[in-house]
Amino acid sequence: MKRIDAVIRPEKLQAVIKALRKTGVNGFTVIPVQGRGQERNTHGVYRGHTYDINLHPKIKLEIVVSDNYLERTIEAIIGSAQTGEMGDGKIFVYEVLDAYNIRTGVVDETIDELKR
Amino acid sequence: MKRIDAVIRPEKLQAVIKALRKTGVNGFTVIPVQGRGQERNTHGVYRGHTYDINLHPKIKLEIVVSDNYLERTIEAIIGSAQTGEMGDGKIFVYEVLDAYNIRTGVVDETIDELKR
Amino acid sequence: MKRIDAVIRPEKLQAVIKALRKTGVNGFTVIPVQGRGQERNTHGVYRGHTYDINLHPKIKLEIVVSDNYLERTIEAIIGSAQTGEMGDGKIFVYEVLDAYNIRTGVVDETIDELKR
Ligand SMILES: Nc1ncnc2c1ncn2[C@@H]1O[C@H](COP(=O)(O)OP(=O)(O)OP(=O)(O)O)[C@@H](O)[C@H]1O
Ligand SMILES: Nc1ncnc2c1ncn2[C@@H]1O[C@H](COP(=O)(O)OP(=O)(O)OP(=O)(O)O)[C@@H](O)[C@H]1O
Ligand SMILES: Nc1ncnc2c1ncn2[C@@H]1O[C@H](COP(=O)(O)OP(=O)(O)OP(=O)(O)O)[C@@H](O)[C@H]1O
Ligand SMILES: [Mg+2]
Ligand SMILES: [Mg+2]
Ligand SMILES: [Mg+2]
Repeated sequence: MKRIDAVIRPEKLQAVIKALRKTGVNGFTVIPVQGRGQERNTHGVYRGHTYDINLHPKIKLEIVVSDNYLERTIEAIIGSAQTGEMGDGKIFVYEVLDAYNIRTGVVDETIDELKR
Repeated sequence: MKRIDAVIRPEKLQAVIKALRKTGVNGFTVIPVQGRGQERNTHGVYRGHTYDINLHPKIKLEIVVSDNYLERTIEAIIGSAQTGEMGDGKIFVYEVLDAYNIRTGVVDETIDELKR
Repeated sequence: MKRIDAVIRPEKLQAVIKALRKTGVNGFTVIPVQGRGQERNTHGVYRGHTYDINLHPKIKLEIVVSDNYLERTIEAIIGSAQTGEMGDGKIFVYEVLDAYNIRTGVVDETIDELKR
């Protein structure tokens, strides 16, 4: 099992969710974030403090998938989130040791994208 | 050391925190998120954009514990967050390589739930 | 490649970002969170529910760096986020399996802090 973190443009969330579902990936978690990539210095404000850099609003998607869904999920994200302009975002992949469904109280093996 | 991500119903946060503390787990981080599991398609709006699916408000808890606290922590979460209805949430487990306490500036070995 | 999660005081975000950039680390993601460490019990309210503990507002930084940047990045965070008082925060380190740049659509090898 793998976890994919995808930091994307907020305006691409709808397209990415559509692409995920078309790929058979239904479970995911959405978190509003702010971030920086390799942009040059500029000034900005965040939560009342002044910074010497701007933080850009982004959306982070956290998606846990089975190993055999990893590649197609990454392709679905890139295909739907890409504009070709700087700031399109990043994808990071992590190992997941275990997954549980809280309703059933046991290890989660019933969900398509968690099948190993 | 392990990190537990628990996505739970917002109304269960109080009960989960109580159960964690009863288990001896005091340190955790709380993040408001939105998400989807295996629900069927419906329409929704998020941050001004229309989506072909609803996103459900959830709470994500991030909890770093020692290996010997892992099982009882997961049991505490399931025991306190479960309603038996769909949407109760998910638990994911990850390996943690290192932990530091910023106040002391060194590797964190003093906290109960970080004891190995 | 490693991912660093640093939970810091919100008022230290500016100093930490400066220290990161001085270290050559330009890419990072910022998430507003709430949390608890080893503090004693007190009462509090969060999202309309009453809790038997207070949650403290913190900032979580997620930073993916190459292995050879790990140590200096942790030192930069500790050096800039530390006050010496309780509540300074925590740093956790995780393994990263892969990183992709969505703009280029391929594995990310071009960014300083992602160089291996
Ligand atoms: N090394 C990193 N660690 C954690 N998050 C990152 C990192 N690099 C970028 N991000 C996140 O991804 C978002 C988008 O980054 P961005 O697409 O600008 O990357 P980039 O490397 O500058 O690529 P590009 O040249 O295509 O702009 C950032 O705002 C930040 O939230
Ligand atoms: N594969 C996944 N990856 C990341 N987050 C997930 C995943 N599946 C679910 N989640 C998160 O957990 C939340 C709750 O999911 P939910 O409990 O509905 O899971 P489910 O698989 O549909 O189980 P149930 O049948 O019990 O509803 C989602 O809103 C989402 O935030
Ligand atoms: N075990 C943990 N797992 C996840 N997050 C944690 C953990 N411990 C602390 N945190 C996060 O770090 C924040 C700051 O913790 P804090 O600095 O108070 O840690 P502490 O262990 O109590 O150390 P100190 O004695 O220096 O206060 C918390 O509000 C929480 O968001
Ligand atoms: Mg950029
Ligand atoms: Mg569900
Ligand atoms: Mg503390």
